[in-house]
Amino acid sequence: MRVLGVDPGSGATGYGLIERKAGAIQHLRHGVLRPPRGAELAERLDFLHRELLAIVTLDAPEIAVVERVFIAANPRSALVLGQARGAILASLGGAGVRVAELAARQVKKAVTGSGAADKAQMQTMVTRLLSLDAVPPTDAADALALALTYAGAGPLAELPLRNRRRSSRRATTQFVLGRSR
Amino acid sequence: MRVLGVDPGSGATGYGLIERKAGAIQHLRHGVLRPPRGAELAERLDFLHRELLAIVTLDAPEIAVVERVFIAANPRSALVLGQARGAILASLGGAGVRVAELAARQVKKAVTGSGAADKAQMQTMVTRLLSLDAVPPTDAADALALALTYAGAGPLAELPLRNRRRSSRRATTQFVLGRSR
Repeated sequence: MRVLGVDPGSGATGYGLIERKAGAIQHLRHGVLRPPRGAELAERLDFLHRELLAIVTLDAPEIAVVERVFIAANPRSALVLGQARGAILASLGGAGVRVAELAARQVKKAVTGSGAADKAQMQTMVTRLLSLDAVPPTDAADALALALTYAGAGPLAELPLRNRRRSSRRATTQFVLGRSR
Repeated sequence: MRVLGVDPGSGATGYGLIERKAGAIQHLRHGVLRPPRGAELAERLDFLHRELLAIVTLDAPEIAVVERVFIAANPRSALVLGQARGAILASLGGAGVRVAELAARQVKKAVTGSGAADKAQMQTMVTRLLSLDAVPPTDAADALALALTYAGAGPLAELPLRNRRRSSRRATTQFVLGRSR
C-alpha cells in the first residue's frame, strides 16, 4: 500500500510518499512544491493542483493523508491555508485518491513520542525511521510523518507482526515504524 | 468582452456570465454549482474545480471576478470559504483566465446605489439591469453583480458613451449598467 502525506501551504506544500510492504515501510520519495513567487494567486493554486495531480498520477497512492486543521490562528491565515488545501484536495478528489486526516498532535506523538515535538525533532525522527541519507525540508518531513503515522497507526496495526506489543497502541506504532530502518 | 462573476461557497457557488459589446451589456447565463451532498470534501472541491473549468472552457470569458475577502467571520468559516476559493481559483488559473477581485461594498454600491444593500435588493437590481425573466438565486445574483460591476466600473468607464456623466464615476457605472435594459 502506498501512502502519500501532504502538508499544504500557500508558499510551500510538502509531500512524502512511502510504501508498506510485508510489514516493512519503505521511503519512495518526498519533496516540496513551491508555486512561482510573484505569480497571481490563481496561477499559484493551479500550480499546486497540477503538480499534485502529476504526483498521484505517477505514483498512484492508495491514500493521501493531510493534517486535520484545528483552527487556532487568525481568520486571514485560515483563509490562505484553506485556499491551498482547496486546490490540493480538489486535485486528490479529481484523481480519485481517498483522503484521510490526522491531527498534528497525533502525528507528532506517533513519530517522536511527544505530542509537543518541534519541527527539528520531527525532521530527525523521520530521517531515522526511513533511513534517509539527508534530512528532508520541514514541510516534506511533516508530510512523511503524516504518511508514516497513517501507515503505522492504521492498517499496519492489524498485521500479525512479531514482537508486537498488544498492550500499547502507541508502542506498536513506534515499533512498526522502527522496523523500516 | 465576456466577464464571468463567481461567488465561491462550499455549499453553493454562484456564477454569472455577461458580455459587453458596443457599450451595451448582455446577459449570457448564470447558475449555481452545488457539490453533491454527502460526498467527501475532496470530491466536493473537485466538483467545483471541474464544473467551473467546463464553464470557462465553453464560454471563454476574458476575465473572472471574485469577491475580495475582508475577514470578519471566524477562522473556521474562513477555512471553509478558503477551500472553495482554492478549488475555484486553481480552476481559473488552469484555464488561463485572468482573475480580478472586487469588494462586496463596492459591488453593492455600483449595482444598487447602497453599499449596505441586502441580498433581496441585489437580486431585484440584477434582474432589472439585465432584463431577466426570472429572479436569479442569491448566489447567482451576487456573481452577476460582480461581473456587472467589473464591466461597468472598469473598462466600460473608458468608452465614449453619450450622456456619460464624467463628474461621477458611480453615476457613470449605473448609467452604463442601465443601458442594457
